[in-house]
Amino acid sequence: MARVSADAQPRVLSTAAIIAVGTELLTPTRLDTNSLFITEQLNTIGIDVLAKAVVGDDRDELLRMFNAIRPRVDLVVFSGGLGPTEDDVTREAVAAALGRPLSEDQSITERLRARFAARGFTTAMPESNRRQAMVPAGATVVENHRGSAPGLWLEDGGQVVLLLPGPPRELRPMLTGLADGPLRARASGAVLLRRVMKIAGRIESQTDEELQPLYREWSQMDPSIGATILAQLGQIELHLFTRDRDAENGAARLDTAVARAIALLGEDVFSTDGHPLEQVVGDLLVERGLTIAVAESCTGGLITSRLTDIAGSSRYVQQAVVTYSNEAKTALLGVPAEMIAEHGAVSENVALAMADGIRSRAAVAVGLAVTGIAGPSGGTPQKPVGTVAVAAVTARATRSRVFRFSGEREQVKFQASQAALDMVRRMLIA
Amino acid sequence: MARVSADAQPRVLSTAAIIAVGTELLTPTRLDTNSLFITEQLNTIGIDVLAKAVVGDDRDELLRMFNAIRPRVDLVVFSGGLGPTEDDVTREAVAAALGRPLSEDQSITERLRARFAARGFTTAMPESNRRQAMVPAGATVVENHRGSAPGLWLEDGGQVVLLLPGPPRELRPMLTGLADGPLRARASGAVLLRRVMKIAGRIESQTDEELQPLYREWSQMDPSIGATILAQLGQIELHLFTRDRDAENGAARLDTAVARAIALLGEDVFSTDGHPLEQVVGDLLVERGLTIAVAESCTGGLITSRLTDIAGSSRYVQQAVVTYSNEAKTALLGVPAEMIAEHGAVSENVALAMADGIRSRAAVAVGLAVTGIAGPSGGTPQKPVGTVAVAAVTARATRSRVFRFSGEREQVKFQASQAALDMVRRMLIA
Repeated sequence: MARVSADAQPRVLSTAAIIAVGTELLTPTRLDTNSLFITEQLNTIGIDVLAKAVVGDDRDELLRMFNAIRPRVDLVVFSGGLGPTEDDVTREAVAAALGRPLSEDQSITERLRARFAARGFTTAMPESNRRQAMVPAGATVVENHRGSAPGLWLEDGGQVVLLLPGPPRELRPMLTGLADGPLRARASGAVLLRRVMKIAGRIESQTDEELQPLYREWSQMDPSIGATILAQLGQIELHLFTRDRDAENGAARLDTAVARAIALLGEDVFSTDGHPLEQVVGDLLVERGLTIAVAESCTGGLITSRLTDIAGSSRYVQQAVVTYSNEAKTALLGVPAEMIAEHGAVSENVALAMADGIRSRAAVAVGLAVTGIAGPSGGTPQKPVGTVAVAAVTARATRSRVFRFSGEREQVKFQASQAALDMVRRMLIA
Repeated sequence: MARVSADAQPRVLSTAAIIAVGTELLTPTRLDTNSLFITEQLNTIGIDVLAKAVVGDDRDELLRMFNAIRPRVDLVVFSGGLGPTEDDVTREAVAAALGRPLSEDQSITERLRARFAARGFTTAMPESNRRQAMVPAGATVVENHRGSAPGLWLEDGGQVVLLLPGPPRELRPMLTGLADGPLRARASGAVLLRRVMKIAGRIESQTDEELQPLYREWSQMDPSIGATILAQLGQIELHLFTRDRDAENGAARLDTAVARAIALLGEDVFSTDGHPLEQVVGDLLVERGLTIAVAESCTGGLITSRLTDIAGSSRYVQQAVVTYSNEAKTALLGVPAEMIAEHGAVSENVALAMADGIRSRAAVAVGLAVTGIAGPSGGTPQKPVGTVAVAAVTARATRSRVFRFSGEREQVKFQASQAALDMVRRMLIA
């Protein structure tokens, strides 16, 4: 059954799959996070990850997943299952799948014994640890300076299969070393570049339709540009990516693609470098030397908390108030009680009065206010749950709008905070 | 190629695989977190997860992974790839794998149009949205009350294949409904029960050591009780779980285990039902008929935002202020400028004066205040980044303490909000 790997030419590595091994990774509280680091390292040297999988400490499951995944990719990276116990089955399963007999590598056993002795244990190394010295025929050992389980590099039919230990502090330096050396040498030399564009005030399907001409243009002019559109709460993300042997050239082509998308979507695009809206607004305030104060009702402090998530935000945020009750709106912001009685607390009038009030009382450049119904109760037929009035006021301009958001309380809060920050952003760039 | 599902007996569902679909889940920054919720829901009704996989928005890759995984399990759950764009391929790939032709379900199209119109868009629904109305032959539609993509339930050869949308807020209620109904009806009847205890004011390793006698007691008295301890930001979780065909009996055994753990950990345990701290504090305030107002500095509104995440919080939260600058602390809370000059803005004195100030100005029962250095700049050798003073004041009692948290800005903010809420909790139960 053994394949004769000598027959096959080493392949250029351009696609990969990642398999994490460990029954604990199939519980409701644990995620395989190693795959993020592995993906980042592989992308940097131009290797795409086509699939990821998690299997338990089960030889048959592992074998089946490996066999299902390996025909599709040039590289398979395993993490975990290389420990000394009977639960640790990665070595055996991969050796069996590739038809490579296992034999003990005495130099590894010696290192394991030395490591064990150096840690000051008085008893001899348990014989079970010798499992970690078992090496499939033809494998190259990848040294692990931070743990007992060595890694393994196997070539089979031109494909590379890499076995790495699960603990991140062991896996990371091992993979980094390989990505700087033998993996990079086998990769195509093309790096994968990516830009994350963030877009506000739009829905996904409509944006996707408007982008169709651009997708067609790219497919004709620069087919190496890829795009993925993602709907998120209160924003859309457009990921543009490309592969290039020349990183500078790739970056320039992505810049062109980003510029074309901005030309189409206009100022709905608030970020082309992955920055969140609160950072974009903060940067604009710093650039223009402006300060801001927020009067929040249904958002309950979330807008100010987001603004102050940004390092250095004390340059533009000095104070904010949360006025949940009508009395507080009157006492802390000077909103006339008659206005609340006439228009209701959730109205553009009241939002504007709140924004005016906080702006003059805090003596800042920008006053921002939100008043709405986060739910689940408090809605009426005229103003259902999710109705939120937002207003922003500066010395030169005034904006206000009533939104209607769907979702649970926390989703309404987040969308309202997003709409409010976006209103300030558009005001500042107008 | 179509299998005739009528031939096969419906199977008892005891094993499952989860496939998350989305190219973005194969990038270095995104993880499939839906699988944790799905695993929890399935475990609760006694279904084990044997494997998880992530594939991109690629029909062929999805098809191959599905075919590789499905012979091994009774249930396959897909998340994602049900959107309206050409990237969304889950429906088509699964229909092709099962040999089921797709046809448009007019009732879904009508719902989509109505949903689109209700959101107040002036343009008609893009025709691309009709992709979401395509249903494979023999599929049962699972309604989605929070989004446009309906779910699908397919039976094939006794196996169940479930297609759910990717956004967690849509997927969660849909799956919960299924787990309470048709999935539970098809499961083995042995349920996996779980209690999530939340613990504040402790570190994980020390707590784990203190729990050792309890672990030993369980292993002798009731070996079916399992425990996992998890360190989280600002809290520890202790998960206790057991499997039982008799849910009541299992629940009673878990209750005993929880009571034993509380006897050991005392009032550091703030929740035994998974409720977050802001809910526990809110419940205590409602029970005692008390109101609260918060004066926040380095937390920037986060405490109030967390308190107002809880439905009904307007009963006890009327207002709050964020006083980032020293001037605001004096103007809005009456903290003497000389006190700030003498002790520094980050001090127990100033925190107490802020708590006193907000309590009297807002005329509430509990005044809570936080002042600290969230970083990355602003630290000094005496008061490094992460130093946070917290104070809580009622008519009867006063508490204050200086904490030193580690981590980035957002981590410091969260830990400070947790310490402040926990201070109020302990005050209220004292």
